[in-house]
Amino acid sequence: MSRYFTDKFASLTPYTPGEQPRDMQYVKLNTNESPFPPSPAVAAAVAAECGKLQLYSDPESTALRAKLAEVYGVKPTQVLVSNGSDEALNFAFMAFADTHSPLAFPDITYGFYPVFAELNHIPYTQIPLKEDFSIDPADYMAIGKTVVIANPNAPTGLCLPLAEIEKIVKSNPDNVVIVDEAYVDFGGESAVKLVDSYENLLVIQTFSKSRSMAGARLGFAIGSEQLIADLNTLRYSTNPYNVNRMTEFAGVAALEEDDYYKQNAQTIMANRRWTIEQLERLGFTVLPSKANFLFAKSDRIHGEKLYKELKARGVLVRHFTKERIAPFVRITIGTMAQMEKLIETIKDILEASL
Amino acid sequence: MSRYFTDKFASLTPYTPGEQPRDMQYVKLNTNESPFPPSPAVAAAVAAECGKLQLYSDPESTALRAKLAEVYGVKPTQVLVSNGSDEALNFAFMAFADTHSPLAFPDITYGFYPVFAELNHIPYTQIPLKEDFSIDPADYMAIGKTVVIANPNAPTGLCLPLAEIEKIVKSNPDNVVIVDEAYVDFGGESAVKLVDSYENLLVIQTFSKSRSMAGARLGFAIGSEQLIADLNTLRYSTNPYNVNRMTEFAGVAALEEDDYYKQNAQTIMANRRWTIEQLERLGFTVLPSKANFLFAKSDRIHGEKLYKELKARGVLVRHFTKERIAPFVRITIGTMAQMEKLIETIKDILEASL
Repeated sequence: MSRYFTDKFASLTPYTPGEQPRDMQYVKLNTNESPFPPSPAVAAAVAAECGKLQLYSDPESTALRAKLAEVYGVKPTQVLVSNGSDEALNFAFMAFADTHSPLAFPDITYGFYPVFAELNHIPYTQIPLKEDFSIDPADYMAIGKTVVIANPNAPTGLCLPLAEIEKIVKSNPDNVVIVDEAYVDFGGESAVKLVDSYENLLVIQTFSKSRSMAGARLGFAIGSEQLIADLNTLRYSTNPYNVNRMTEFAGVAALEEDDYYKQNAQTIMANRRWTIEQLERLGFTVLPSKANFLFAKSDRIHGEKLYKELKARGVLVRHFTKERIAPFVRITIGTMAQMEKLIETIKDILEASL
Repeated sequence: MSRYFTDKFASLTPYTPGEQPRDMQYVKLNTNESPFPPSPAVAAAVAAECGKLQLYSDPESTALRAKLAEVYGVKPTQVLVSNGSDEALNFAFMAFADTHSPLAFPDITYGFYPVFAELNHIPYTQIPLKEDFSIDPADYMAIGKTVVIANPNAPTGLCLPLAEIEKIVKSNPDNVVIVDEAYVDFGGESAVKLVDSYENLLVIQTFSKSRSMAGARLGFAIGSEQLIADLNTLRYSTNPYNVNRMTEFAGVAALEEDDYYKQNAQTIMANRRWTIEQLERLGFTVLPSKANFLFAKSDRIHGEKLYKELKARGVLVRHFTKERIAPFVRITIGTMAQMEKLIETIKDILEASL
């Protein structure tokens, strides 16, 4: 830290992204990326923009917002697009939470929420998940705070039914409920269909997972026109050209081939079923996931050890040191070949440690 | 504004980007873009990334920072890359200014500085430019505030000699001096060569102007390792994957063909000389620009009227309503064909108003 760094942020602990080691070629199951490349139309759309890179992108992302509105059945003015969903989340925290409207989110969830809260000096309460790692909706009823729920939750993969989300939204009419649906396309039910009924509901999604575009950085928020207008006030005060033109039109192209991505999601869900079955046969406890990852533990090997042994054998998964979840590893669902390699490697590790 | 929007930002006035009307094809001289497309290698580099978009970008932007370090003669740890230079500016304001270190910048300068200051609740002083619209370095000597100077300045195009920048930096050892060099490649002298001598100097540049990549969104900051580490603390608390992989490798490719961009800058400077001469022949006062734009006024037509008449005839320039500069228009330097069209159109307008 330099001696010029403001006291305001001196105690910040930044977010730690998943590792990207370069010492060898790994089977990379640690950052919940899709194993499938984007559709061919995406490359064509990007190529068409390359000759126009000297021109600023459209600060309104008009084409992309129109397409998102069409796909999700809302008005373009109900859509904000962002440089990854992290940016939309940060804007939402800035806009709808403060000392008068503090935040509430689960103790085990996306690790960036407490970072955004600290960054923006917003008080927050971390509500413990139940013993089975599920969210208890009762904990959030009429809580009188700005609620943030990842649904499906990470790193557990557990999903609340939409009816439970609706009860939480309905019971907190004076606070915004932010539903982070990064993983919703792998078996969850989106709350987007509720945004016209509840002015306090903001849904955030991403192109990083089901739409194979983590490297293009594209997220979006859908809510009432008023909530989106508030987010735009912050966007225009921060970075009006937040989405570059290659990413904007990659997003449009991806939405035009939505069936390709839906098919990929089906494949991932099938590979997930297979992987759960294999892990359970090996004695693992696997939380019932609706995401493109599994959260699993074994009485035979601690999460940290399994992570290290897998890494030593060329398979990357993610381990979290937080005590309550330290026994687990989080495993991204990839191709069948990747899942077979994972299972074989786990078998080797378990045998070697007998 | 929704009833959920925090009081913290309720009085924010966002930045207004240059207009992008779609009603006709304009000669677009209003947002200081390059008239030249990026080098062919940029499209090839982007195409190579398109098949890997499902994978997150490198949060360290290792390849791009290494290349920038090589080109600018610093260490990679002295370089931060950002989603356009606006993001780097916002991080710098957040990191190095607060109520104890308020901001000082000119009254006429990049219109985003007061917005970033308001966004971050940082007090600021706007120091009037001299009568000739130049910055008086004496105003910033030992000022005891965090200084922000666009050099060349916008929308004036005027440039301080490096020796004057150095005096300002030297006289404020306890505060950071941020030098915004968005337009430095059109005849200015960069302060990057001073960063190893002054730990309080932060230089910010962009690929949007001389490197023909406004639509790719790429900026960077160069300073001491400590200042860059502070900016990274904020980046990792906001958006660690802030630069997407297409833009990262477009940037690498552009740096590998730096001669192409230097040649383009020479062409723009030649077109600038021609345009100044033509405008002066028409009786305009033109500030001596070291940027890829001109700031010009005429006793025969007010800036706002000229802007409107030009727009009606298919030529877009930028007009600012702030009283002190309202007589002027800001004209981006484009190709010779564009400049000829501009001059012909201005002649028509002046003749019609006789």
